[in-house]
Amino acid sequence: MNQIEQLVSKLNEAQVDAAWISHPINIFYFTGYKSEPHERLFALLVKATGECVLFCPQLEVEEVKASPFEGTIIGYLDTENPYQKYDASIKTMFIEENHLTYRRYQELTKAFHINAVYPVDPIIQEMRNIKTEHEINILSKAAQLADECMRIGEAFLKEGVTEREVVNHIENEIKAFGVNEMSFDTMVLFGDHAAAPHGTPGERQLKNNEFVLFDLGVIYQNYCSDITRTIAFGHPSDEAQKVYDIVKKAEQEAINKIKPGVKISDIDKTARQIISDAGYGEYFPHRLGHGLGLEAHEYQDISETNDNVLEEGMVITIEPGIYVPGIVGVRIEDDILVTKNGYQSLSSYQK
Amino acid sequence: MNQIEQLVSKLNEAQVDAAWISHPINIFYFTGYKSEPHERLFALLVKATGECVLFCPQLEVEEVKASPFEGTIIGYLDTENPYQKYDASIKTMFIEENHLTYRRYQELTKAFHINAVYPVDPIIQEMRNIKTEHEINILSKAAQLADECMRIGEAFLKEGVTEREVVNHIENEIKAFGVNEMSFDTMVLFGDHAAAPHGTPGERQLKNNEFVLFDLGVIYQNYCSDITRTIAFGHPSDEAQKVYDIVKKAEQEAINKIKPGVKISDIDKTARQIISDAGYGEYFPHRLGHGLGLEAHEYQDISETNDNVLEEGMVITIEPGIYVPGIVGVRIEDDILVTKNGYQSLSSYQK
Repeated sequence: MNQIEQLVSKLNEAQVDAAWISHPINIFYFTGYKSEPHERLFALLVKATGECVLFCPQLEVEEVKASPFEGTIIGYLDTENPYQKYDASIKTMFIEENHLTYRRYQELTKAFHINAVYPVDPIIQEMRNIKTEHEINILSKAAQLADECMRIGEAFLKEGVTEREVVNHIENEIKAFGVNEMSFDTMVLFGDHAAAPHGTPGERQLKNNEFVLFDLGVIYQNYCSDITRTIAFGHPSDEAQKVYDIVKKAEQEAINKIKPGVKISDIDKTARQIISDAGYGEYFPHRLGHGLGLEAHEYQDISETNDNVLEEGMVITIEPGIYVPGIVGVRIEDDILVTKNGYQSLSSYQK
Repeated sequence: MNQIEQLVSKLNEAQVDAAWISHPINIFYFTGYKSEPHERLFALLVKATGECVLFCPQLEVEEVKASPFEGTIIGYLDTENPYQKYDASIKTMFIEENHLTYRRYQELTKAFHINAVYPVDPIIQEMRNIKTEHEINILSKAAQLADECMRIGEAFLKEGVTEREVVNHIENEIKAFGVNEMSFDTMVLFGDHAAAPHGTPGERQLKNNEFVLFDLGVIYQNYCSDITRTIAFGHPSDEAQKVYDIVKKAEQEAINKIKPGVKISDIDKTARQIISDAGYGEYFPHRLGHGLGLEAHEYQDISETNDNVLEEGMVITIEPGIYVPGIVGVRIEDDILVTKNGYQSLSSYQK
């Protein structure tokens, strides 16, 4: 079943007439057509009958026709009421409660005389949680491009270079590989500056014998990568190296446990236990990871409190870290696919 | 009156108990604090009494304290219900209908036992429409940085360079001026490629004797610039040069008419008439411009159908264009402040 068919099946199961998809990322997920017309209406109507209708500005109609979307296209001019261009009797509707604005909710329920709405958010979340073969291929390529960014960045390290210069160099050079957008602001932090888990790259200059933390990812065919490496430049202090070794072990042991059926909280606990046992528990203040796909951070949390189980086809990050204020910050992060019998790391830059 | 005081005065005028501001850009507008905690609740409550309460993740509390915001801060943990941390009796509420999600609307009305909501969107729109002295100073600097981008880009033009290379060069070099974010994807298009008004820079190489269209802007202290120049590289054809001269004249005549009290539609018509009279009317398919501020495109449309009048303190773009498919595309755009007696152009790169 493709994505639309899955949604239609959920509609029939719930005996709901139609779904109104309004988040541009989810519209892309269901149609293969990406757009962001901001204040203009852009929405996908999926009916329990299987019929699909995409509402978009008239200007975009030709682009939609050239896209993989195969349903009805309702183009509208700014002077027209888009809802009036499609005649439908819909009594009950799935809506994206976390995306649809109050204004659109009012317009929609009035236009189609809707009696009841229900959240479709959890359904889409569960669908996007499990990646298709096609999505996995793209995510794998996105992770390889993040590895490439690491190679570019590491090769550029020299005494006196600033964090900002390294960021600019990576973002500029990776464009030659066809990457025009990073999945978030590239982070490059030197030595003690990396001890702030959400620091901002600045004019700090690289000194010999310190660690360099890179946290970066690219957008490739609309899918994101997100990896972190902490690289020794020269010979960091024994304490810094010790912290590095603990984080590396925590990451590897957590990854080793990944396979379908394992509780997500247990993966987090595995890494957290190793770090706590080494005496650095208080310096690991964040969750172990998160889902990865059309968004750099998406469902679900890889955390101590998530008792869902891993399923084949999930793609997640594993990223333990230790941040000792004024001393050192180390984080190591890979993009991991849950396979039938275990896992596959999509990122592979040396650590 | 500062922005909060203006909003409080509107609340009292309308006899509404409070306003719930949810759009991060508008929260910045009222508080000077910028954040985007995504799925986590982030909202500003402004009461008719003048009291202000900012709801934010606990992690951000220290940053808010360091910001210009002076009201009450309600930090919450992921395990807490933020609404329960503030006890308020609010019967009627202004909400941002175009931003608040259906989910948040439900939570909010339930948490505070609200009886009626009204849209605050038009009120904020009108406030943001008129820039303060402080905002004008920042917008002016943002426009100067866009001029600087033009200087960098024009100096980099040479036969064989690709559109993408010019974009990368500009975005990289402007970072030395403290700019870390462009206000939209920088557009550099060569010759006939510029005849698509929303084309994407690619591997097209620059040839001698063609026009180069640059459309770009920076974000400076959260405010945007947005300018366009079309630069002759060598000696473009007579027809291309003729098109250029018409666009330049249309832009200048439209700008010359700018002063408080003039109908916005008349500004658009002035430019459109010049282009039509020259026989290119069908090749100018978009509005003349738009508002500019915290967003690159904001209220209001500078178009044929907008019969509002210009007011002192508005900052708008004026950007006529002519796009002859397969031949040439020319657009010229400046950022214009409406002054007490006329206008001031914030951008000044040669044309």
